[in-house]
Amino acid sequence: MEKTITVLPGDGIGPEVTGATVQVLQAIEKRYNHTFNFQYALIGGAAIDACENPLPEDTIKLCSESDAILLGAVGGPKWDQNPSHLRPEKGLLAIRKHFGLYANIRPVKAIPALLEASPLKKEIAESVDLVIVRELTGGLYFAEPRKKTKDYALDSLVYTREEIERIVDTAFQLARSRRGKLASVDKANVLDSSKLWREIVEEKKQGYPDVEVEHMLVDSTAMKLITKPDAFDVIVTENMFGDILSDEASVITGSLGMLPSASTRGDGFGLYEPAHGSAPDIAGQNKANPAATILSAAMMLREAFQMETEAAAIEEAVFNVLNDGNFTSDLQVEGKRVLSTTEWTAKVLEELD
Amino acid sequence: MEKTITVLPGDGIGPEVTGATVQVLQAIEKRYNHTFNFQYALIGGAAIDACENPLPEDTIKLCSESDAILLGAVGGPKWDQNPSHLRPEKGLLAIRKHFGLYANIRPVKAIPALLEASPLKKEIAESVDLVIVRELTGGLYFAEPRKKTKDYALDSLVYTREEIERIVDTAFQLARSRRGKLASVDKANVLDSSKLWREIVEEKKQGYPDVEVEHMLVDSTAMKLITKPDAFDVIVTENMFGDILSDEASVITGSLGMLPSASTRGDGFGLYEPAHGSAPDIAGQNKANPAATILSAAMMLREAFQMETEAAAIEEAVFNVLNDGNFTSDLQVEGKRVLSTTEWTAKVLEELD
Ligand SMILES: CC(C)[C@H](C(=O)O)[C@@H](O)C(=O)O
Ligand SMILES: CC(C)[C@H](C(=O)O)[C@@H](O)C(=O)O
Repeated sequence: MEKTITVLPGDGIGPEVTGATVQVLQAIEKRYNHTFNFQYALIGGAAIDACENPLPEDTIKLCSESDAILLGAVGGPKWDQNPSHLRPEKGLLAIRKHFGLYANIRPVKAIPALLEASPLKKEIAESVDLVIVRELTGGLYFAEPRKKTKDYALDSLVYTREEIERIVDTAFQLARSRRGKLASVDKANVLDSSKLWREIVEEKKQGYPDVEVEHMLVDSTAMKLITKPDAFDVIVTENMFGDILSDEASVITGSLGMLPSASTRGDGFGLYEPAHGSAPDIAGQNKANPAATILSAAMMLREAFQMETEAAAIEEAVFNVLNDGNFTSDLQVEGKRVLSTTEWTAKVLEELD
Repeated sequence: MEKTITVLPGDGIGPEVTGATVQVLQAIEKRYNHTFNFQYALIGGAAIDACENPLPEDTIKLCSESDAILLGAVGGPKWDQNPSHLRPEKGLLAIRKHFGLYANIRPVKAIPALLEASPLKKEIAESVDLVIVRELTGGLYFAEPRKKTKDYALDSLVYTREEIERIVDTAFQLARSRRGKLASVDKANVLDSSKLWREIVEEKKQGYPDVEVEHMLVDSTAMKLITKPDAFDVIVTENMFGDILSDEASVITGSLGMLPSASTRGDGFGLYEPAHGSAPDIAGQNKANPAATILSAAMMLREAFQMETEAAAIEEAVFNVLNDGNFTSDLQVEGKRVLSTTEWTAKVLEELD
C-alpha cells in the first residue's frame, strides 16, 4: 500500500521522538513492502517562530492531502508569555477543530516491566487496561459566547445532540470490541449538558445490548481511577472532563512515556500523538523516550491504514525491548539499562529487522 | 461560651455520624464548660420525604439563627430517579448558595496508622499534607443562562472579579498560616474565566510577598496529585475543578473516612461536614466511620468558635484511638481491631473524659 503521512515534529522533544518513529515506520515499509511518503510541516512554537502562526495554512494544506498525521508535541517556556493567539497549544486546538477530530482515544494499559515506576501499589496498577474516549471538539473548549473584561469572564459549555451521539457511538463500538463495559462520565446532578449527555447514552444503549453501561459522576470517577482503576474498560466523557481524567489516568501505571493517543473523526483519518508533552527540560539531549510516539504510529497503522499485522509487529518490538531491560532515563525502574533515544530506537529497529 | 449548632443529619449514615459527633461535642461542652445548644433540621432525601423540598424554609430559618451548621451527608438510591428539583443534592447546593458559603476547605493529611489503606505507595503518600480551597458558589454550578432541549444543552461558566478575589484571598491567607506555598489551578490555555482567574492571582500576590505562588493547569494537577502529592501545600481553584480535584485528593492517603471539610464565607459562620458521602449500603448498621464528622466538628470549633484548645483535644483523641489500633470496618488495615460506630465513638469519649 502507498500512504502519505504528514509529520508535525512540533517543539521540545517532538523532533527527536517523531524522528525515531519515522525510522520505525521506514522499517515497517521495508519489511511489509509498503510505501510511506513522509512530508513535514510546522505546528506550535516552531510555527510561531517561523511565521507567527501556530497552525500555518501550509500545514493545513499538507495535512489535508495526507492519509494521517503524526505529531510530536507542542509548547515550551519560550512561548509561555505570548498573547493567546500566539501560543503553541492554539495550533493543536485549531488542527483538531479544522479537521473535525472529535474523538480522542487514549488507551492506558499496565506494562509489567514498568510497574515499579507506578505511584500506585502493584496490586492496584497491575491489571489496568482501560481506554478513555474523550470528546475533543465541543464543550467549553470551543463554544460561544465567551467574554472577558477586567471584572467578569464567561465561557460557555454547549453540546448538541449530534456531537454527543457520534462520540457515544464511537465509545459503544470500542467497548463492544473489548470487554463490553462502558462508563459514561458526566456531572448530571449539576449540569444541563450532562443531563442531555446521559439521556443520549440511555437512548443509544438500546442499540448495544451487548455492552454494559454505567453512568458515573466525574468526581467519583476521579476517585475510582485511583482506588480501582482495573474496574474500567471504556470510559467516555465530554471534552474538559476528558482532559482531566485522561491525564489523571495516564500516570496510574507508571508508563506515561509509553502512552499513545489518536484523535479521529470516524473515517480513519486522524492525528496520532504521544500522550505526554514536549518536555522542554530534556529537549535536544537524546534522552527522550520515543515509545509513546512509536506506539502512536502503531495505532495509526491499525486504525488509519488497517495494517493490523504491522501495528502488532511494532507493539511486540517495543515490549520485547522493554522486557529485555532496556529503558530510557524517564522510567524509574531499579537495575534497568539506561539508553539514549537513538540507542533505544536502534533496539526496536533490530527487532523489526 | 454559649453557641447554637444546627445539626442536619441528612441521609444514609448521616444520622449515625452526626449522632456520634454530637456526643463528642457534649463531652467538650462538659470538659471546657461551654454551652452548646443543638437544634435539628431536615435536608436532602429526609427533607424530600417529609415535605417535598430538599431544603425546607424551616431548615433555613434554624440555620440562620445558629452559629454553625453540622451536616452528615445527603443522597441515596431512593431518590435517584426523582426529577431534578427533588434530588437530595439540590438541598446541599441550595444551602451553600443561600448562605453564600463560597469557600470550601478540604484538608488532606496522611495518617500514619492508615497508610496501608492508601492506593499509593507508602513513600508517596506518607508526607501528604495539603489543603484544597475550592470556590463553592460560582462557575458552572450556578451561572445563567442554562438551557436544555432534546437536541441542545448549554451551561455557563461565569466568574466575577469579586468572586475570584475573595476566594484567592482566603487561599493566600491560609497558605501564609501554613508552609507558604500556593498552587493556583486553572485552564488558562483554554478558558477565558481561567485567564481572569490567573490575572487576579497575579495581582493579589503582590499583597502576599511571603507566599510562593505557582500557576498550574488542571490536567497536570490531576497527574501531580498522584505522582507528587507531597509537593502541594495549599491548592486554590474554581468550583468544578475543585469538585474533581478534591475528590481525587481525598483518596490518595487511604483516609477518606477521616477527612473533614468546611464551607465558609469569611466571617466564621459555616457548614461543617465530612468529605465522604452518605454510604447508603451500610446505613443503619452501626458500621459507619464517624471520624470525618468528628474532625469536621473540630474544624468548626477552631474556625467558627475560635476554640483552638478544644479542637486540638478532639483531634488528639481521634488520633490516639487510631494509633491504639482501633478502626471501623471501612479501613482496610491489617491486624486491626474492628469496632462498630458506637464502640469506636465510646473510645473517643473515653479519651476526652
Ligand atoms: C494543550 C491543551 C490545550 C490540550 C487540551 O487541553 O486539550 C492538552 O492538555 C491535551 O489534552 O491535549
Ligand atoms: C452532590 C454534589 C452536587 C456536590 C458537588 O458537586 O459540589 C458534591 O460532589 C460535593 O463535592 O460536595
